[in-house]
Amino acid sequence: MRKVIYSVGTSLDGYIAAPDGSIDWLNRVTANAKDEDFGMGAFFKRIDTVLMGRRTYEHALKFGMGKDGYPGMKNYIFSRTLPPGERDGVEFVSCEIADFVSKLKETSGKDIWLCGGGELARQALEAKAVDEVTLGLTPILIGSGIPAFPSTFPETALELAECKQYKGGTLGLTYRVVSSKMPGNRKTKVTKGKKKG
Amino acid sequence: MRKVIYSVGTSLDGYIAAPDGSIDWLNRVTANAKDEDFGMGAFFKRIDTVLMGRRTYEHALKFGMGKDGYPGMKNYIFSRTLPPGERDGVEFVSCEIADFVSKLKETSGKDIWLCGGGELARQALEAKAVDEVTLGLTPILIGSGIPAFPSTFPETALELAECKQYKGGTLGLTYRVVSSKMPGNRKTKVTKGKKKG
Repeated sequence: MRKVIYSVGTSLDGYIAAPDGSIDWLNRVTANAKDEDFGMGAFFKRIDTVLMGRRTYEHALKFGMGKDGYPGMKNYIFSRTLPPGERDGVEFVSCEIADFVSKLKETSGKDIWLCGGGELARQALEAKAVDEVTLGLTPILIGSGIPAFPSTFPETALELAECKQYKGGTLGLTYRVVSSKMPGNRKTKVTKGKKKG
Repeated sequence: MRKVIYSVGTSLDGYIAAPDGSIDWLNRVTANAKDEDFGMGAFFKRIDTVLMGRRTYEHALKFGMGKDGYPGMKNYIFSRTLPPGERDGVEFVSCEIADFVSKLKETSGKDIWLCGGGELARQALEAKAVDEVTLGLTPILIGSGIPAFPSTFPETALELAECKQYKGGTLGLTYRVVSSKMPGNRKTKVTKGKKKG
């Protein structure tokens, strides 16, 4: 089964971007480790599809991504305001991410990258549509910005699958999603799921 | 020179406690690793002083800590509202943490634990009074609560000094503070400090 992976680079205080969407801070940190790919090569081999929120798409456009999104893969942009359909090399989607992902997983293909932002990730996690959370945890506090896990994320038990240490002190953390439950239902027992292969 | 260490256990989404100050979620995660001390034994040998904010103290009282704070060490509680002075086995402090820490460092002793909360840690980091940040990063998202790094923390370059993986998937991350600067001064060059021994 194709997996959905919420994978983002974050500051130690949990931001994926500065308040204006820029990732100068990330580039500054990773510039200290020029010949390090932070596992991105292997990750991009593993995926053929990217899901992103409309705001993340617009931020990425502003900071240099082409309109056709990440090259060499299918790009889906989730928006409740823009008309759905294919244009500019990406596909705009207006349905709920849960329904979309469940249909996508029935098709054959590689794993699916949920690249953000946090609001889309929250919807996906609430709908139990996320299999893995991977963080590139960079050694910096940026103080304010766009959070990887905005408030009211569903309580979610995770299992650490991998911790890699890259040059410059960035950590590559891979967690499997074990169970999640909605806020307001905190007395539900968190049960540990079976290990996936 | 004595070091000031901001050391807290956090959820993967960066909370040190649930909204009511409880750490049930932390106890639940660490219960999966009963004979694991998460480096606390070595840490407690290294320190003889604890600094905490008044709200953290009150939360800790509510959830079982004695009025005299952490046993076997000097406990200072920072409060702008409570009268300063020693009582109930702890010492209440009303001055700025920067001034206090700078005087404390001139005395001999072991390292100093800044155990929270995030607001006190922010004041200390702004005043360049923090030498290390150590996180017990637990494999859970709790969704909301009291943040380890509340918004408007000063941008701070860190250096990963240690990454330990404990049973149950908790990570012990130790960062040295390299440089910090106030928000609103983001164009200042972040310079990498010399490695400390």
